[in-house]
Amino acid sequence: MSSRESRGSVGIVEPKQISISEPLRLSCGHTLDNYQLVYETYGELNSDASNAILVCHALSGNHHAAGYHTENPDERPGWWDSCIGPGKPIDTERFFVVVPNNIGGCHGSTGPNQVNPATGRVWGPDFPPLRFRDWVHSQRQLADQLGIHCWAAIIGGSLGGMQAMRWSLEYPERVRHCLVIASAMNLTPQNIAFNEMARKAILSDPDYCDGWYQEKGTRPRAGLALARMIGHVTYLSQNQLDERFGRELREGTFERGNSLPVQFEVESYLNYKGGQFAEDFDANTYLLITRMLDVFDLAREYNHSPAEAFARAKCKFLVMSFSTDWRFSPDRSREIVKALVQAGRDVTYTEVETDRGHDGFLADIPRYQRDLAAYLNRVAQETSDAN
Amino acid sequence: MSSRESRGSVGIVEPKQISISEPLRLSCGHTLDNYQLVYETYGELNSDASNAILVCHALSGNHHAAGYHTENPDERPGWWDSCIGPGKPIDTERFFVVVPNNIGGCHGSTGPNQVNPATGRVWGPDFPPLRFRDWVHSQRQLADQLGIHCWAAIIGGSLGGMQAMRWSLEYPERVRHCLVIASAMNLTPQNIAFNEMARKAILSDPDYCDGWYQEKGTRPRAGLALARMIGHVTYLSQNQLDERFGRELREGTFERGNSLPVQFEVESYLNYKGGQFAEDFDANTYLLITRMLDVFDLAREYNHSPAEAFARAKCKFLVMSFSTDWRFSPDRSREIVKALVQAGRDVTYTEVETDRGHDGFLADIPRYQRDLAAYLNRVAQETSDAN
Repeated sequence: MSSRESRGSVGIVEPKQISISEPLRLSCGHTLDNYQLVYETYGELNSDASNAILVCHALSGNHHAAGYHTENPDERPGWWDSCIGPGKPIDTERFFVVVPNNIGGCHGSTGPNQVNPATGRVWGPDFPPLRFRDWVHSQRQLADQLGIHCWAAIIGGSLGGMQAMRWSLEYPERVRHCLVIASAMNLTPQNIAFNEMARKAILSDPDYCDGWYQEKGTRPRAGLALARMIGHVTYLSQNQLDERFGRELREGTFERGNSLPVQFEVESYLNYKGGQFAEDFDANTYLLITRMLDVFDLAREYNHSPAEAFARAKCKFLVMSFSTDWRFSPDRSREIVKALVQAGRDVTYTEVETDRGHDGFLADIPRYQRDLAAYLNRVAQETSDAN
Repeated sequence: MSSRESRGSVGIVEPKQISISEPLRLSCGHTLDNYQLVYETYGELNSDASNAILVCHALSGNHHAAGYHTENPDERPGWWDSCIGPGKPIDTERFFVVVPNNIGGCHGSTGPNQVNPATGRVWGPDFPPLRFRDWVHSQRQLADQLGIHCWAAIIGGSLGGMQAMRWSLEYPERVRHCLVIASAMNLTPQNIAFNEMARKAILSDPDYCDGWYQEKGTRPRAGLALARMIGHVTYLSQNQLDERFGRELREGTFERGNSLPVQFEVESYLNYKGGQFAEDFDANTYLLITRMLDVFDLAREYNHSPAEAFARAKCKFLVMSFSTDWRFSPDRSREIVKALVQAGRDVTYTEVETDRGHDGFLADIPRYQRDLAAYLNRVAQETSDAN
């Protein structure tokens, strides 16, 4: 444990679960009479509940963002352990950090892989379609339960950044700072194309069973693995792939006479990552969330004017991008900044020079950590000044 | 027909077929005792056979590069009709143009979808793995049969450019000009990753039947369609997708309550293109050629030194790239140019400013046509001066 502690770990954490019985009317018209949220918290809520940070996870993320679940020294920490912990940019000695698993997810919150109480059957493909605002409303109900009226900050990378922006429009009084990392106000046609191919991979897998694989005791592993590979390659930059894999051969030489087996390190890596994901993630959740992403369009209800949308917001913004990100490129972040400026909002923008592509937002990059820490230091000072 | 003629069409053409009985020893060790090549020719071979141009097709291409097969006014012309014809850059009034379907292909030349004479059974997945030099050697045998000792030019885009470069090293005395368009000396790990995902899509399709689908009277349509979609999206630039599709919805509105059907124009387009390809192309050929691409490395046998490789060549080179091509970016073309300059070769380089991405090499772009025409005009003048 000493190595963990020296890295400023939150240590062993236990997921919490809450059952919310306030009905949640979804954008599609369906109402969830009650639903579960699994979440983790790190740090302590202060007396006036002014130091709470909401962290919104991305497509493949969940509530386990920092620390460890067991004493097993081989266990990997939560997905954002590099940023969350004592003395880290999201400093758990100053902030109370809340990370829920989104509804529609597959790690314990109400979603396709859970039982629909109305039918006693797993939701499966019948889980209602969601919009980002449904996530925001469920998180607002969670905030109410936790006694948090106003978040000191809401932070999210990628899809998490979209949630954070939607929060700033849905509940402008309930967020002081919005941190939008490697995100965009909607998807490009190219983004949509990659999502569609991923869905195609899942839907074509005979083990998908029209979405009822869970009842049939199977999983669309091949389809989900391929879907993940298609996504994964868009998270990585060309440079990074070149440097990490080059044209290295798995066995050091071509296998003559047989053209099909995996031969390059990069293939081996993506196949491994895809296979791992297919064991851990739910196919219906993947379909649901990629479609949510396609449809998300921050300014649609604001006459397609991002500036008009952000005119509703009251919080301050930090927007961050990564130089080699080609999924949500720095240009997409600059569109957000431009709209915020037009709307008269307070905005800080920083572009991190890195080879890490879109996945940079999960990486331990000194410049990134420094900028994030500096901004959140300001947020913490405001919080303590007010006390 | 008048509209066709006014566009400088070669008009109605008929594919030719040749059976070559000179044994072809493949790089893998296997020997094809005889094999078929399907090809088309446009224009007339001059008396000293000095005006012949070999056009090498790309992954999804074939021998039908120009003109029409029928009088049907709805028929689309060959894949490079914009560049080949009377008065066009590859001017059939000056050149004799030869376009073979590569062996391993699926449009009539010896390949996985043809019968293996040794077994009486379709080759299917047993077709031997090929290397680019095998293509080059088969094309050399075709040249011998046609009485062409030295090509005035060998031209290829993308994978076709790799063939053209390999030709310049395998038979330096038999080519005067090598035109390498939107190509590269090997694939990047990202290129390989996309190929691997495409193969995965095919191999995961239950209708693939371990490659024996043809005998079973089926086709891995879903897998091949997805494979093509994965490839296709890398041929198009972001700009082009933005401009052509934006976030346009197929039905003009979201279908509430059902999150899965195709909703965006870009999805509809890619699905259509994928489906069309799946009817026309052979899955084993796709597997074979994508693996050939992964393994291709122009300089491998030359101590991994491209300059050392090109020191073998004797011809002059035109290298062309397209500004928004992210599959084989202008940087990859500049690597070729750099190696040619180091090797002391005569090289002209041109980068075409366009939104069309990798597929620019098939497009009717004025600047591209002009540069190609200017270069080939020089080639034609050399040819007539020598006569």
